[in-house]
Amino acid sequence: MRTAPVCPSPIMQHETVQMAHGAGGRLSQTLMQRLFMPHLHNAFLDLLDDQAKLDLPAGRTAFTTDTYVVSPVFFPGGNIGELAVNGTVNDLAVGGAMPMYLSAGFVLEEGLSLVELETIVKSVAEAARQAGVVIVTGDTKVVGKGQCDKIFINTSGVGIIREGLNLSCRNLKPGDSIILSGTVGDHGMAIMTSRKGLSFQSHITSDCAALNSMIAAVLDAVPAVHAMRDPTRGGVAATLNELAVSSSVGIEIKETSIPVKPDVRGACELLGIDPLHVANEGKLVISVDAKNAGTVLEVLRSFEYGRDAVIIGSVVSDHAGMVVMETAFGSRRIIDLPLGEQLPRIC
Amino acid sequence: MRTAPVCPSPIMQHETVQMAHGAGGRLSQTLMQRLFMPHLHNAFLDLLDDQAKLDLPAGRTAFTTDTYVVSPVFFPGGNIGELAVNGTVNDLAVGGAMPMYLSAGFVLEEGLSLVELETIVKSVAEAARQAGVVIVTGDTKVVGKGQCDKIFINTSGVGIIREGLNLSCRNLKPGDSIILSGTVGDHGMAIMTSRKGLSFQSHITSDCAALNSMIAAVLDAVPAVHAMRDPTRGGVAATLNELAVSSSVGIEIKETSIPVKPDVRGACELLGIDPLHVANEGKLVISVDAKNAGTVLEVLRSFEYGRDAVIIGSVVSDHAGMVVMETAFGSRRIIDLPLGEQLPRIC
Repeated sequence: MRTAPVCPSPIMQHETVQMAHGAGGRLSQTLMQRLFMPHLHNAFLDLLDDQAKLDLPAGRTAFTTDTYVVSPVFFPGGNIGELAVNGTVNDLAVGGAMPMYLSAGFVLEEGLSLVELETIVKSVAEAARQAGVVIVTGDTKVVGKGQCDKIFINTSGVGIIREGLNLSCRNLKPGDSIILSGTVGDHGMAIMTSRKGLSFQSHITSDCAALNSMIAAVLDAVPAVHAMRDPTRGGVAATLNELAVSSSVGIEIKETSIPVKPDVRGACELLGIDPLHVANEGKLVISVDAKNAGTVLEVLRSFEYGRDAVIIGSVVSDHAGMVVMETAFGSRRIIDLPLGEQLPRIC
Repeated sequence: MRTAPVCPSPIMQHETVQMAHGAGGRLSQTLMQRLFMPHLHNAFLDLLDDQAKLDLPAGRTAFTTDTYVVSPVFFPGGNIGELAVNGTVNDLAVGGAMPMYLSAGFVLEEGLSLVELETIVKSVAEAARQAGVVIVTGDTKVVGKGQCDKIFINTSGVGIIREGLNLSCRNLKPGDSIILSGTVGDHGMAIMTSRKGLSFQSHITSDCAALNSMIAAVLDAVPAVHAMRDPTRGGVAATLNELAVSSSVGIEIKETSIPVKPDVRGACELLGIDPLHVANEGKLVISVDAKNAGTVLEVLRSFEYGRDAVIIGSVVSDHAGMVVMETAFGSRRIIDLPLGEQLPRIC
């Protein structure tokens, strides 16, 4: 008589990921059938073919990829599973595409708790449902203990590009308004303050969210948006610099107009980090002709994830390729890219 | 006066991957512009947008993903770079798709030699050229020393499915011939025998190759092929079992008909591994109506990668879901999936 289940979650005969789960044998099948498929199954994955066969509607197709290596994998406001879905959904949406299909490639470390893995897979499934995308193909690999850090997830995505748009980081025009959809630095500082060794008493949570519905509404209202980016790794500073360089224009922003939550500002000051360099996972930077800026703001503010949207600056013909900020004290300084890392593994 | 370059390959100011190369700042840009782009640049990647915009020809689209974690990353007959391209090209092609566009997501370990990284990136570029696919979008992450094993590469792929085909692992019919395109076990045993601690005096090299041209020629000649798979992880045994289960048919094969190179057979015997369980990276298993088998064989044998193609068995209505082999001694045994891993991280 068995007196106790082998695993707290009665899905598998082991409690942790084994090398054998990745070897293509019977245990690989078990992991797939008992842990992944109950949450992710759909008409595409159920076929168990090596590739999904998609009937894409007419139009140009957007294709993007990102590997997520965030540490810790569970952080205030989310986990690596929803981050991996939302990040790729947003990368498609900011290009003017309707995100449709995602792939998911998991690298699992031997010894990873199966309960944790199932929680992450559930988050992948739930985030996909919320964003209205389907995980149509996948892959799972297992590496030995100490050969990865718990779990890495690659998601690649396919979407259909809306007609009549011309979004590009090369399309900024002098006179554009630069709009930011909300507070900066929430994701990066949520990760930083949840790391071992840092014991902030903070309530900072990640802004990790899928923005495709909000973006679609903005583009419905103003198809003439010039450029849209999600300021993830490198933060708003990196995004603005890329836009300025790609379009050979200058960008001027006002420090006082940039929304930063007090907790985030405090943590940044303590760590000596500029919030403009901190990653966001649910924010947009939009460049649009000033005459359309009001409409874009109105649409953004009608959404939960855009309620704090503001104009933070404008595009100028001076100092091409450079981002200049008017500080709270009235002085001007160049907002450059950081040389190296301040915040490793935030996505 | 500088007396010596900082780096043996004069591409970068460091000799190894630094955490800062993955942080989205200036060093990330340098890595991209000096190491990745010289080899991979094309009209899509040059745009530096977060997503590639593709004009796909009409037709159904195939979409697939795989993460490659092979160890060692350099092995006899190839490296992780070409493996990552060829593996995903083959996953598209066996579904009847013409592989067109690939994404590439790199996870790099801090301390990885930049010379090794550049060799791998060159192999990615060269393999893509040979297979006729374009790397259109990518991502690079860096994790700390000991948080991954040198380099992992995810490739996802998009292809256009040829019309008039109905390839599926559920389409095997009793009376089909089972064709194998060449010798088994070359890739897996090349990896095994090149691992530290094993010092075989062998000349086993991986069969890593892109098979899309050969597959296209087979499907041109015989569009009525029922199923096609590349027997990678889990080997021919896993592939045949998946086909038998998915189609609810039996499969019978003859041991004496299965081509195995003498070196591979010897290494398998020494390690106690059945070559049918060993991964291949340049082989096909094809199920086709017996009357078309001769034509398929003829086409395969006209290609370098198919010159050893043979019929290894047939599909039967008995013992549905089971693969049975007539051994060299005339006895019959069930070819099952291995329970767990014999060969971790072979792809």
